[in-house]
Amino acid sequence: MADLSTCPPLTRASVVEAHNLIRPFVHRTPVLTNRTIDGIVSTPRTAEDLQGTPWEGATPARPTLRIWFKCENMQRVGAFKARGAFHAVERLKREPGWEAGGGFAKGVATHSSGNHAQALALAARTAGLPAHIVMPAISAAPKVAATRGYGARVVFSGSTAAEREAVAAEVMAATGARLVPPYDHPDIILGQGTAGLELQEQVAAAKAQTTAASGTGAGPTALLYASATAPQRTTAPGGGLDAIMTPCGGGGLLAGTVLSAQGTGIRVFGAEPSLDGADDCARGLAQGKRIEAVQSLTIADGLRTPVGVHNWAVLTGDTPESQGQGVHGVYAVGEDQIRAALRLLLERLKIVVEPSSAVPLAVVLYNEEFRRRVETDAGADGWDLGIVLSGGNVSLEGFAKLFPEA
Amino acid sequence: MADLSTCPPLTRASVVEAHNLIRPFVHRTPVLTNRTIDGIVSTPRTAEDLQGTPWEGATPARPTLRIWFKCENMQRVGAFKARGAFHAVERLKREPGWEAGGGFAKGVATHSSGNHAQALALAARTAGLPAHIVMPAISAAPKVAATRGYGARVVFSGSTAAEREAVAAEVMAATGARLVPPYDHPDIILGQGTAGLELQEQVAAAKAQTTAASGTGAGPTALLYASATAPQRTTAPGGGLDAIMTPCGGGGLLAGTVLSAQGTGIRVFGAEPSLDGADDCARGLAQGKRIEAVQSLTIADGLRTPVGVHNWAVLTGDTPESQGQGVHGVYAVGEDQIRAALRLLLERLKIVVEPSSAVPLAVVLYNEEFRRRVETDAGADGWDLGIVLSGGNVSLEGFAKLFPEA
Repeated sequence: MADLSTCPPLTRASVVEAHNLIRPFVHRTPVLTNRTIDGIVSTPRTAEDLQGTPWEGATPARPTLRIWFKCENMQRVGAFKARGAFHAVERLKREPGWEAGGGFAKGVATHSSGNHAQALALAARTAGLPAHIVMPAISAAPKVAATRGYGARVVFSGSTAAEREAVAAEVMAATGARLVPPYDHPDIILGQGTAGLELQEQVAAAKAQTTAASGTGAGPTALLYASATAPQRTTAPGGGLDAIMTPCGGGGLLAGTVLSAQGTGIRVFGAEPSLDGADDCARGLAQGKRIEAVQSLTIADGLRTPVGVHNWAVLTGDTPESQGQGVHGVYAVGEDQIRAALRLLLERLKIVVEPSSAVPLAVVLYNEEFRRRVETDAGADGWDLGIVLSGGNVSLEGFAKLFPEA
Repeated sequence: MADLSTCPPLTRASVVEAHNLIRPFVHRTPVLTNRTIDGIVSTPRTAEDLQGTPWEGATPARPTLRIWFKCENMQRVGAFKARGAFHAVERLKREPGWEAGGGFAKGVATHSSGNHAQALALAARTAGLPAHIVMPAISAAPKVAATRGYGARVVFSGSTAAEREAVAAEVMAATGARLVPPYDHPDIILGQGTAGLELQEQVAAAKAQTTAASGTGAGPTALLYASATAPQRTTAPGGGLDAIMTPCGGGGLLAGTVLSAQGTGIRVFGAEPSLDGADDCARGLAQGKRIEAVQSLTIADGLRTPVGVHNWAVLTGDTPESQGQGVHGVYAVGEDQIRAALRLLLERLKIVVEPSSAVPLAVVLYNEEFRRRVETDAGADGWDLGIVLSGGNVSLEGFAKLFPEA
């Protein structure tokens, strides 16, 4: 990882710069809309639906929402993590003295059994560096094979954080490799923020084309899945989006999205699972203090980690450049709600995503606090809401376990 | 259905005209590429793979392919059938005397339990016509509910073709509704052909943008999922595609695609399941005569029907406008091969498709006759091959039945 002292400021301009660095290596993933899902999320829940929830007896909220889904499940390695990993490697290559110090031979290292492992392996191979990935010995064989498939050296460790960090330290001492952590670093945050930046550009372009088309009578020329007859607003700030919501685990994607929206007027929200306290970001914001450890077995397995230190500073607006503006709110949902949102994405949007990706849609569907906020803040016009679908790495066998009834 | 005497000629220009008619009502569905799948299909199979196949002992073919997937699973009602249904209704509205004869009150009718039923229901509702849909009484409840959800009147019948046709005749006699058949009509063929037309436009636009981008150093601006670093050819005929392959059931999509490619130099291929003789198009072409009946329980349930009469004429180049050019070839695959291709689309392309949609990719993966043809005709340059993913209407429960081992 590039030395912290060399990191760019945490601003929207730095996200733009990050995008310029990684654009040759990552996909510009598609953005999808779906009027059936818009109809479902814009329908008030019934009094019966709210029984047994914290909102029992309350009048159901009446939000109006048009959702733009950013398909990072179709990103390289199947997750947004490719953005941060490519950015970290590109920044490292530019660190003064890194190449002269043998950086290309020493390479990079991390400890991860998830999408970050594969993302770093791919980014390192692309740059011509070795990657040393520390994985728990109990990791699933397909994940080990996939990481090796991208050319990385896999080193096994015990399963606890301490055991993994100890092995990673040994690997780095032996090889001179630089650590690239999965989320807690400015370069990672800036890289992940490029997804939000692209989403803003794509929605603005789609709206411009639709407007031009309806003016001339010609059909839309966008390659986007958005009907010419869908309701459109073109007066929203930030090029057409009123808000963006992303999942929140370590907070790389969410913090990066906050930076991507700086100065645009776009509100940014986070979504977490509530199981076993995995809603550490929401709880931390409520108590004014970062929660440092989480132990949850939520099905949203990308979101089992606590928010990182750098991420927390961005989310709370506690950086020199933030002018006090961080995330606008973080909301949590239960496991069955995540499952129901996941099913909707599969059966209606016709795409394959991993459970973590379904958490924001679950918030939009089931969290009455968020729904009330949309009703109150947006009024009858409603909001154009971007949702980042973070990844799609789940097998058929994985789905069978998630939906045993099916 | 508009009277046959009023139908436009079966030409590419008529497909363009059909596109102009239906564009306000259908989605311009996205086109996806995937370098992992390109790598897999461009890798020769092993001698071991070919054991027990008709190609046992032969040298495995060495095709090079770049695939462009046209996502009609994301079309309205979840299938390309919306194109033909909207076109049929728009053409009917323009038939001389239809409106004066009370056409808007009499409406349309069909017998179908599949995607065509929902497509016609939606198209009729959009135009303000009643739709009378004859479905077997044993149809799955969700399909009946979905068809009614689009505002159609569902009339139940027995399950045989004779029973369904008899009930449809009664309904039409009682209501004056006009029949809109699922595939065997020029207006349906022309409507379905618009998917191939859009695919050609989208691939050409994506290639132009990539070329422009690499010329200026700027990144691609396409909303398409296609990396700037993917290998690109820009010299192919037909705006960038060398060939298109679609599934073939009744032949509406395949015949329409043949028309969409007229004069472009693009070769058009069909893909069928081989189980229980569902490869009626390939067998008919081999014997020089349309096969009129099929009874197959292939998992590709959209492809259990024989090719229609009008469809057959287009596929064999037996129309006044075809100059003898029909489909360039039709290839068949087995059930396990369809399942394997379906899994690849789910796990790698991250999209949900019904089994019929996976048949072309199965041909590309497993049919050595097709693979040899690519090697021979395309040489080292390889082909840019468009594949139309025809629909995505399958539930989680449906997947559970398709993959009992998972």
